[in-house]
Amino acid sequence: MNTRPATVHLSPSEALTALRDGAPLVQCITNAVVTGFTANVLLAVGAAPAMCDLPGEAGPFAGVADGVLVNLGTPTAEQRDGAREAVRATRAWVLDPVAVGVLPVRTALAHELLEHRPAIVRGNASEILALAGEGAGGRGVDATDGPDAADGAARALALRTGGVVAVSGPVDLVTDGERVARIGGGDALLTRVTGGGCSLGAVMAAFLGVCAPLAAAVAASALYADASERAAAASSGPGSFAVAFLDALDATVAADLDARVDLSPARLSAAAPR
Amino acid sequence: MNTRPATVHLSPSEALTALRDGAPLVQCITNAVVTGFTANVLLAVGAAPAMCDLPGEAGPFAGVADGVLVNLGTPTAEQRDGAREAVRATRAWVLDPVAVGVLPVRTALAHELLEHRPAIVRGNASEILALAGEGAGGRGVDATDGPDAADGAARALALRTGGVVAVSGPVDLVTDGERVARIGGGDALLTRVTGGGCSLGAVMAAFLGVCAPLAAAVAASALYADASERAAAASSGPGSFAVAFLDALDATVAADLDARVDLSPARLSAAAPR
Amino acid sequence: MNTRPATVHLSPSEALTALRDGAPLVQCITNAVVTGFTANVLLAVGAAPAMCDLPGEAGPFAGVADGVLVNLGTPTAEQRDGAREAVRATRAWVLDPVAVGVLPVRTALAHELLEHRPAIVRGNASEILALAGEGAGGRGVDATDGPDAADGAARALALRTGGVVAVSGPVDLVTDGERVARIGGGDALLTRVTGGGCSLGAVMAAFLGVCAPLAAAVAASALYADASERAAAASSGPGSFAVAFLDALDATVAADLDARVDLSPARLSAAAPR
Repeated sequence: MNTRPATVHLSPSEALTALRDGAPLVQCITNAVVTGFTANVLLAVGAAPAMCDLPGEAGPFAGVADGVLVNLGTPTAEQRDGAREAVRATRAWVLDPVAVGVLPVRTALAHELLEHRPAIVRGNASEILALAGEGAGGRGVDATDGPDAADGAARALALRTGGVVAVSGPVDLVTDGERVARIGGGDALLTRVTGGGCSLGAVMAAFLGVCAPLAAAVAASALYADASERAAAASSGPGSFAVAFLDALDATVAADLDARVDLSPARLSAAAPR
Repeated sequence: MNTRPATVHLSPSEALTALRDGAPLVQCITNAVVTGFTANVLLAVGAAPAMCDLPGEAGPFAGVADGVLVNLGTPTAEQRDGAREAVRATRAWVLDPVAVGVLPVRTALAHELLEHRPAIVRGNASEILALAGEGAGGRGVDATDGPDAADGAARALALRTGGVVAVSGPVDLVTDGERVARIGGGDALLTRVTGGGCSLGAVMAAFLGVCAPLAAAVAASALYADASERAAAASSGPGSFAVAFLDALDATVAADLDARVDLSPARLSAAAPR
Repeated sequence: MNTRPATVHLSPSEALTALRDGAPLVQCITNAVVTGFTANVLLAVGAAPAMCDLPGEAGPFAGVADGVLVNLGTPTAEQRDGAREAVRATRAWVLDPVAVGVLPVRTALAHELLEHRPAIVRGNASEILALAGEGAGGRGVDATDGPDAADGAARALALRTGGVVAVSGPVDLVTDGERVARIGGGDALLTRVTGGGCSLGAVMAAFLGVCAPLAAAVAASALYADASERAAAASSGPGSFAVAFLDALDATVAADLDARVDLSPARLSAAAPR
């Protein structure tokens, strides 16, 4: 168990293999809607989930967890204090600023937590724009802006935190401020299941247990694109899709992931360690 | 986005088409057991769910949401304050008084919130009787009384709130105090899945974004009857039923709904706007 | 409805038949991750679940519930007070000390609640060892020790509470301090679904409504072994397994359960009432 992000760069296929071998312990401080689905996603991927978000426990646990997710979807007062503890105890954490810019309590909290430099910020374009100070935040959980609209904001935000920013959308965009990876594909049924995006942040936290932030965000996005396509092919609506998606995550062939990633200016596997 | 219920009367088929076109934003202040299933139901129907129940956020969000659900299943102190904010900010809200009459905290809250005149009250017969002051409230989430036993209580309650009351049961009953609609059919497997009733209240809130309260409650009930029958035919137990129900909601043919409704004294589509 | 555990000893097949006939009301004070799955498991088994965990409600409700689960997975401040109320109002309760020994808030609460003598304590080996004062508690939700390693600790803990201790693992172990039952079989996919263990505690609480604690814990363990094997045969991954498990619980043939139990020194059905 570690309290700092791993620094090794791995390709998505290498990262998934390392995750399945290592079964990283992932602490989830997340919203009340998606707790169960998120835990099932983590188990399907091969990680060990633990919802531990209370003051007095969240901090100590973050110190031993391999990765931590802080998702602001339903931030109760106790959970806000738990999140504050956790981000002081680890650098291996992901911030998912759900509906930031739209709602005041979480917006203030997101800006406060951002000072503790998340290894990864994951959101839709509207959320990334709002967090970077360039947009109004959409209308809640929906993205009203496309990922490319957030390209500049994502780079600026990454340079500010010293971490990675991942923008979810039809094509996912991941950047550390200099390099930009784009991961295409995936199926839109993932947007018809609650927790489709929130659980992606948790999987990024799991990958933080085995590789560096850029590689972690890219691997998670590639895994989601791959698994969601296979799940859509095996399902007949949003209900059966959610079930098939968990099966597909479990059955993913690691070697299938690498071709999904387009990284510039350099190949991810050849990049210098951050 | 609107802060008042729509006033147009639509048939169930018209209402479902309007909902799918408009993708209303539905704020859910609901219980911890059914948050995920409720969000998935709303997504399957074509609405945009947002769980937003905290003090400082629930009120402002209710002002922009197209419909709001207040379900009293697990009313924490923060959620109680969130609900108080929300009902002051909108008239397009549904009250689901889970286990009212049985448990003291929610019973007091239900009566307090009722003064803010919900557009729709949805419950089982025992809950409606208890809220109207005519019964003891069953033994929690179960209905120990049948819907017809609550006919008079439902009419009286509707006249008191100026809204609509919907009583769930083998035959659903919806009334504005004068007109009474009955919606038959549906499958009992819906009672073997947690959130079967709670999510119905959320769907009523979604329909409030596109039509008047009586039409909204009727459309939601007809949709549930139709989708639950098709889901039951495609499943082999309560687990597969819940999955098939989400698929069935997504695949519902709007035109199939209208024949399920028996309204007296007038046809719904010909009724005067409230 | 009763406020004390039933004292009759039943075989697993007799217990399941009695549960389905009686539809016991089960109060769940449980963690935010598994509420929905737990309620669906209880419905599939034939019980009536009610999440009722708030101060002012949890105590009165425990007085009428047929069985109560107190699971410490995400013990918010309100839920801790709710749990304190509940265990004062009933003897028919199950303690699931999730991650005890690892995290300080729940560890203190577990030891406090233990003084109110749960009818059943259910946990994995690491949790039972930690609660008995003999281990460090694993790394959270995972068991790092095998069930047999907790044999002595389980017996000692049972003698201390005057109740029953159930240790979940590849072979489940249930003891009242003198007799020891072992229940083999089951499928490891149950450990790939969140709530697999937590919901087992809820089912034990349901069985407390119809039989004595030792018989209740044994019946629930046998039911889980049987249903998980059939579900695994019908599924293709952790997602479809969770769905098939609910169907399998609903479809279990009661007579299939008894052969799964190995009890020493005496046959369960011939044991003297506690």
